[in-house]
Amino acid sequence: MLKIAVVGATGYTGKELVQILLRHPHARPYYVTSTSFAGQKLSAVYPQFRGLCDLTLEELDLKKVAACDFIFAALPHGTSVKLVPQLLQTGKKVIDLSGDFRLQDAKLYPKWYGYEHTAPELLEQSVYGLPEVNRREIANATLVANPGCYPTGTQLAILPLLAEGVVESNDIIIDAKSGVSGAGRTPKQAFHFPECTENFKAYKVTGHQHIPEIEQGLSRAAGHPVTLLFTPHLVPMIRGILSTIYVRLKPGTTETLISEIYQEYYKDEPFIRLLPPPELPETKNVSSTNFCDLAFSFDRRTGRLIIISAIDNLVKGAAGQAVQNMNIMMGRPETAGLQ
Amino acid sequence: MLKIAVVGATGYTGKELVQILLRHPHARPYYVTSTSFAGQKLSAVYPQFRGLCDLTLEELDLKKVAACDFIFAALPHGTSVKLVPQLLQTGKKVIDLSGDFRLQDAKLYPKWYGYEHTAPELLEQSVYGLPEVNRREIANATLVANPGCYPTGTQLAILPLLAEGVVESNDIIIDAKSGVSGAGRTPKQAFHFPECTENFKAYKVTGHQHIPEIEQGLSRAAGHPVTLLFTPHLVPMIRGILSTIYVRLKPGTTETLISEIYQEYYKDEPFIRLLPPPELPETKNVSSTNFCDLAFSFDRRTGRLIIISAIDNLVKGAAGQAVQNMNIMMGRPETAGLQ
Amino acid sequence: MLKIAVVGATGYTGKELVQILLRHPHARPYYVTSTSFAGQKLSAVYPQFRGLCDLTLEELDLKKVAACDFIFAALPHGTSVKLVPQLLQTGKKVIDLSGDFRLQDAKLYPKWYGYEHTAPELLEQSVYGLPEVNRREIANATLVANPGCYPTGTQLAILPLLAEGVVESNDIIIDAKSGVSGAGRTPKQAFHFPECTENFKAYKVTGHQHIPEIEQGLSRAAGHPVTLLFTPHLVPMIRGILSTIYVRLKPGTTETLISEIYQEYYKDEPFIRLLPPPELPETKNVSSTNFCDLAFSFDRRTGRLIIISAIDNLVKGAAGQAVQNMNIMMGRPETAGLQ
Amino acid sequence: MLKIAVVGATGYTGKELVQILLRHPHARPYYVTSTSFAGQKLSAVYPQFRGLCDLTLEELDLKKVAACDFIFAALPHGTSVKLVPQLLQTGKKVIDLSGDFRLQDAKLYPKWYGYEHTAPELLEQSVYGLPEVNRREIANATLVANPGCYPTGTQLAILPLLAEGVVESNDIIIDAKSGVSGAGRTPKQAFHFPECTENFKAYKVTGHQHIPEIEQGLSRAAGHPVTLLFTPHLVPMIRGILSTIYVRLKPGTTETLISEIYQEYYKDEPFIRLLPPPELPETKNVSSTNFCDLAFSFDRRTGRLIIISAIDNLVKGAAGQAVQNMNIMMGRPETAGLQ
Repeated sequence: MLKIAVVGATGYTGKELVQILLRHPHARPYYVTSTSFAGQKLSAVYPQFRGLCDLTLEELDLKKVAACDFIFAALPHGTSVKLVPQLLQTGKKVIDLSGDFRLQDAKLYPKWYGYEHTAPELLEQSVYGLPEVNRREIANATLVANPGCYPTGTQLAILPLLAEGVVESNDIIIDAKSGVSGAGRTPKQAFHFPECTENFKAYKVTGHQHIPEIEQGLSRAAGHPVTLLFTPHLVPMIRGILSTIYVRLKPGTTETLISEIYQEYYKDEPFIRLLPPPELPETKNVSSTNFCDLAFSFDRRTGRLIIISAIDNLVKGAAGQAVQNMNIMMGRPETAGLQ
Repeated sequence: MLKIAVVGATGYTGKELVQILLRHPHARPYYVTSTSFAGQKLSAVYPQFRGLCDLTLEELDLKKVAACDFIFAALPHGTSVKLVPQLLQTGKKVIDLSGDFRLQDAKLYPKWYGYEHTAPELLEQSVYGLPEVNRREIANATLVANPGCYPTGTQLAILPLLAEGVVESNDIIIDAKSGVSGAGRTPKQAFHFPECTENFKAYKVTGHQHIPEIEQGLSRAAGHPVTLLFTPHLVPMIRGILSTIYVRLKPGTTETLISEIYQEYYKDEPFIRLLPPPELPETKNVSSTNFCDLAFSFDRRTGRLIIISAIDNLVKGAAGQAVQNMNIMMGRPETAGLQ
Repeated sequence: MLKIAVVGATGYTGKELVQILLRHPHARPYYVTSTSFAGQKLSAVYPQFRGLCDLTLEELDLKKVAACDFIFAALPHGTSVKLVPQLLQTGKKVIDLSGDFRLQDAKLYPKWYGYEHTAPELLEQSVYGLPEVNRREIANATLVANPGCYPTGTQLAILPLLAEGVVESNDIIIDAKSGVSGAGRTPKQAFHFPECTENFKAYKVTGHQHIPEIEQGLSRAAGHPVTLLFTPHLVPMIRGILSTIYVRLKPGTTETLISEIYQEYYKDEPFIRLLPPPELPETKNVSSTNFCDLAFSFDRRTGRLIIISAIDNLVKGAAGQAVQNMNIMMGRPETAGLQ
Repeated sequence: MLKIAVVGATGYTGKELVQILLRHPHARPYYVTSTSFAGQKLSAVYPQFRGLCDLTLEELDLKKVAACDFIFAALPHGTSVKLVPQLLQTGKKVIDLSGDFRLQDAKLYPKWYGYEHTAPELLEQSVYGLPEVNRREIANATLVANPGCYPTGTQLAILPLLAEGVVESNDIIIDAKSGVSGAGRTPKQAFHFPECTENFKAYKVTGHQHIPEIEQGLSRAAGHPVTLLFTPHLVPMIRGILSTIYVRLKPGTTETLISEIYQEYYKDEPFIRLLPPPELPETKNVSSTNFCDLAFSFDRRTGRLIIISAIDNLVKGAAGQAVQNMNIMMGRPETAGLQ
C-alpha cells in the first residue's frame, strides 16, 4: 500500500482525494495537512469521514512528507508555486492540483493568475497530467500539473478534432457551466445559499484563468496557436461541468468522419464515454465518477458542430484525474480506485 | 376594470397571468377555463390563490368569453391554432401565448411544431407582441402573438445591433439556459425532482421550435435573412432564462458604439435595464419581474462580442409581456400592473 | 405618503421591507442606512432594485431619521438595544425587528441572547407586534417589537387553543423547519451552497433564543406559565417556515370544537387562512405573502393533536408583519401594501 | 462471485442495489428484470451505468431467476406479495424490499397498505431484516423482509432505550423528514421539480404505512405494545432522512445512563455512528453510505429527550441494508461492498 501525503486536505479537492484514496486498493491516505485546521481530526472538518478515516490534520512538516511514498498538493494557486519546490526536495513524486505548474510560459502568470512565477524552471520539468494525451510523459514525470476542471472537459472534447485538422482552429467558442463546488470551500457572498440557489449567471467573462491552459493544450494538438473564446457560468448544483462547444468544420468534413475520429482517438480510453446519438451528456450521469461523457451534433443550417462534454469537476476535473495520474506514475493499473 | 378571460388558466403561464392580473389596477381575472380541472376552484389547483381569487375553472364557453373585455389564450401549441379563430369571433381582442401565431410563414409549422397550420390567414393578421419593436402595430392589433420565452430574451439582446448593421448577421450563436418551469406543469421523467435537481444538460440541440421565431425577428430587424445557432439548456431552478450570445462585430465597430446603440435603442423602454460594466445579468435579479437585463463584453482576443440577457421566463418571457401587450392594446399605461 | 426610514436596509429583512414599501400605497422608503455599504446605492447591493429604487445607503444620522414619518430598525440583536433608544428620541414611532425588545423580563437576555439588556425600561413600554393578539395595543404603541419568525408561525397555531383552555399547556412540542434566509445574509460555512443544498439538519436543539418568546406569548394566552420544547431545522430552500406542533387535548375536547375555536378566533383576520381538511400547509403556498396557513389533524391512536402552520419567514415572519404593524400604528388599512 | 437477481431493477431502490453490487467483492448483478423497460439495456434507463454494467432488462422468467444464487425483489408493495411466493419456489434465498412481508399481523394490511394479504403463511416465515436487532435470525432466514426507510432510522434511534426500559413507551413522537427519492421514480405532480423545490410540507399525517412497522419493532423491543405518533415530511433534496424523535425519560434516568446504553448496544455495530455532543446528525454526512448517525439531547426544561437520527433512505434505508442482509444470509463479511 502506497502511503500518500495530501498537502492541503480540507479544500473540496483535498477532501475528494482522501475519499477516493480510502477506496484505493494500492494506496491509502497517510499524512494530511491543513494550515487552518491543524490539530483537528479530518473527520471533525468533514464528519462523513467519521469511522472511515481517523487521520489528524497537521501543519506541513517536510520530514513527514518525505516519509510518504507519493505527494498530492491540493493548495490554492499562488501557494503551490511556493511549496511544490520544497515538496520535490523530498525526492518523491508530486502531483500539483493547482494551476501553478500548468502553463509552460511563465510570462502568462502575471496576466492570468495575478502573480510573478517564482519557479519557472519547474514549468519545463512539469508534465501536464491529461492521461488521454500525455500518458507516457506522465509515467516518467516527477512533477505532474493536474489539469483544471474546465480544461479537462473542454480539451477532451476538442483535441481529437484539432489533432486531425478537421475543424477551424481560429473559431472555437466554449460555453461552460459549473456546479458551485468549483468555487471552493471558503464561504463568500456569491455562494451563500440564498444568493446562489434559484440563480444562474456568467462570471469572469473573457478573463478566466483557464483560458491559456485550454489554448496551450489545443495549440499543442493542432500544431499551431489556437485562440478561443471561453465563458464560464455558475449552476445552482454542487458538482458537475457541462461544456457546450461550438466549432466550424473544415470543408468536406462529414459527421461520419467526426464520429470515426472520436472512436479511434478514444477507443482504449477507460474514462471516455462516447454517447450514441441522440443521447446527450448530463452532469448527473458522471457525478462522482471519473468519466468524461461526450456527444456531438452537426447543425446543417449553420454549418457548425456542437460538441458537449460532461465531467464531475471534483473527480475527472480534479481528484479523480490526479489519482489516475498517480496510478500511471506509480505503475499501478490506471483505473485502480476509480471504478 | 377590464374583465379578463384566461383560456387555459392552470398551466404555469395561465397561473402567472392570473397572479399579475390580481394586482392590476385596470383589469381583473374574470373568467378562467380549464379542460382538466373544470368545476374546481382555481385555488384548489394553486392553493396560493386561496383568499385572493375565488374564481371557479370552467369548460370553455364562447358566450362567457364574449362577456369579457379581453382574452388571453394560454394553451399548448397545436391547441391554440384551433381555438383562437373561435375566440376572435367574439369580437374581442386576443393575445395568444402559444407559438401558433408567431411565425408568418405557415410552411414552417410542420417542420418546427409538427403540425399543419389550419388558420394560415390569421398569421398575416397577427402581430408579434414584442413591444420594444412593434409597439404601434400592437396598439392596433386584434390578435397578438405573444413571443416565446427564449425569443424574448435573445431578440432584445441582438436586435439593436442587427438593426444598426454593426454585427455579422450570419455568425450568431445563442447558448441559452432556462429554469424548469419553462417545460410546463405536466409531470415528466426529465422534470421529476430527483432527476432534475443536481443536474445540468442541453436539450433539443439544433432543433428547438423557437429557432425560426428568433430568426424571423432578427431577419426583420436586419432587413435580410438571418440564420443562427441556438442551444437550449435546462437549469435546476424554477424560473429564469440567461442567454449568452456570441456575435462577430463588423470591422470598425467599437465598444463605445455598441454601448451607444443600446442606450439609444432602449432609452425610453421601461422594462429594459442596461447594466453598467462590469455588472452582469443574473436570473435572480429579474425573478418575478418584467425586466430584461442586458450587458455585453468585447473579447479582444477573438474579436467577438458576448451579449448576456436575463429575463424571467414566466413574466417578460410570457405572462408579464402579455399584460404589457394588453396594456398597449387597451390604451392603459404600458407598465400598469407590472411594477 | 409616509416617508419611511429603514435603519439597517441591507440584511434580508431590511431588503424585504424596502421591497414591500415600494409597492405600498401610503408609504415609501425614504431613508436607508447601512454601516457596511454606506455610500453605495441600495441597487448596487441588491441589483433587483435597479430602476425601482434609487436610494443611496447612508451612515445612520438621527437628524435624517427624524425627518422621516416612521422608523423601522432592521438590525442584529444586540445592536438594536443600543440604537433604538436613540431612534425613539426623534419622537417618531419605531418598529424594531430584532429580538431586543420582545421579552418583557430583562433577566432572560443574558441566558438566551448572551448580553445584559441595557434598556430594560423600554421592555415595559414596548408592545409585542402580533396583530392577531395585540391589535389595540399596537395601535397606540410608540415602540413595537416585531415578533420573530418562528414565534409568529407557532403562536398563531397554538394561541387560540391555549386561550380557550382545551389543550394541556405543559405538553407542547414544536418541530420547526426554516429556509436558509432565516440565517441572514452574512456568508458562513454552514450556509455555503455546497454544504447546505442536499442537506437537512437540526440546530440549536433545546437552546434557540425564540423559545422564551414563544413561551411568553403562550403563557399570556393561557393565563399561566407554559413551558415547551422547540427544535428548529434547516431546509435547503430560501424562504418559508413550516412548524409541526404536537399538543395533547384536554379530556372531552372534540375535533369539531377545535375547528370552531380556530374559526371564531380568526374569523376576521385578513392574513390567517384555515385550510379545510385534508389540505395541509406548504411553504410555497405562502411564499412572498403575509399569510399564515393553518391546519390540524387529530391522531386518534395517540390522542394528540397535530397542528401545522406555514409562513414566509421574511414576510409574515418579519418585514410583512412589520408593515402590517405600521399600518395599524399609523391608521392605515391593515392590509395596505400586503396583497 | 454470487450471481444476483434483481427483480424490479429500474426503480430507485433497484438501481441503488445494482450500483452497490457492482462494487461488491463477492457478488455481481447477473439478472435484472423490469416490466416497463424489458428489452432495453439498464444503461439506457440509467445512463450512469454506461461502461459499468452491460445487462439487459428482461421480463421476469423464474427459470432464469433460479439460475442465480440470490434474489432481491425491489417491487412496489402489492406486487411483491404476489411474486415473492413464486421467487421462493426457486429454492433460493430472497430479500424483499417492499413492505409486503414486514408486518407479522396480516390483518394490518388492509388498513395500512390497502390490500388483503394473499400469502399470510409467509409472514410467519419472513424475518425482519434489521441486522442490529435480528442478525442471527437473518443468517438463517430464507425470506427477509428488508425494513422501510423511516422504520430503519427511527427504530435504530429508539430501540436501545425501550429495550432497557428507560423511556415511557406510550409517549413517543417521531417527526421525520425525507428526501424526494423516497417517493420513487414515477413522475407525479407533487414531485415535479417546480412544485417540489423551494417547498416544504408534511404528508400522510397520522396515516403513513410505516407506522405499524415501527410500532411492531418497538413493541418487540419493549416487550409490550407501543403506540406512537409519526409525521413524515418532504424535503427538497434527493436523498436522506432525518428523524427527530421526542421521548419522555422514566424517573431517575440520567443522560449518562442514556449514553451508556447506546454505547453498549451499538459497540460492535459497523454502521452505527454515535456522535459525541454537541455534534448532530446531518443527512449529507451519511449520503450514499450505509451509516446511521445518532445523537441525543436532553431538554431539562421539559424533561424530554430528543433523539436525532440520519440515514440515506436508499442505502441504509433500502438497498445498502439489503446487501448487508445478503452478506449475513450468505456468510460473507457483513460490511462487504458497503464501505
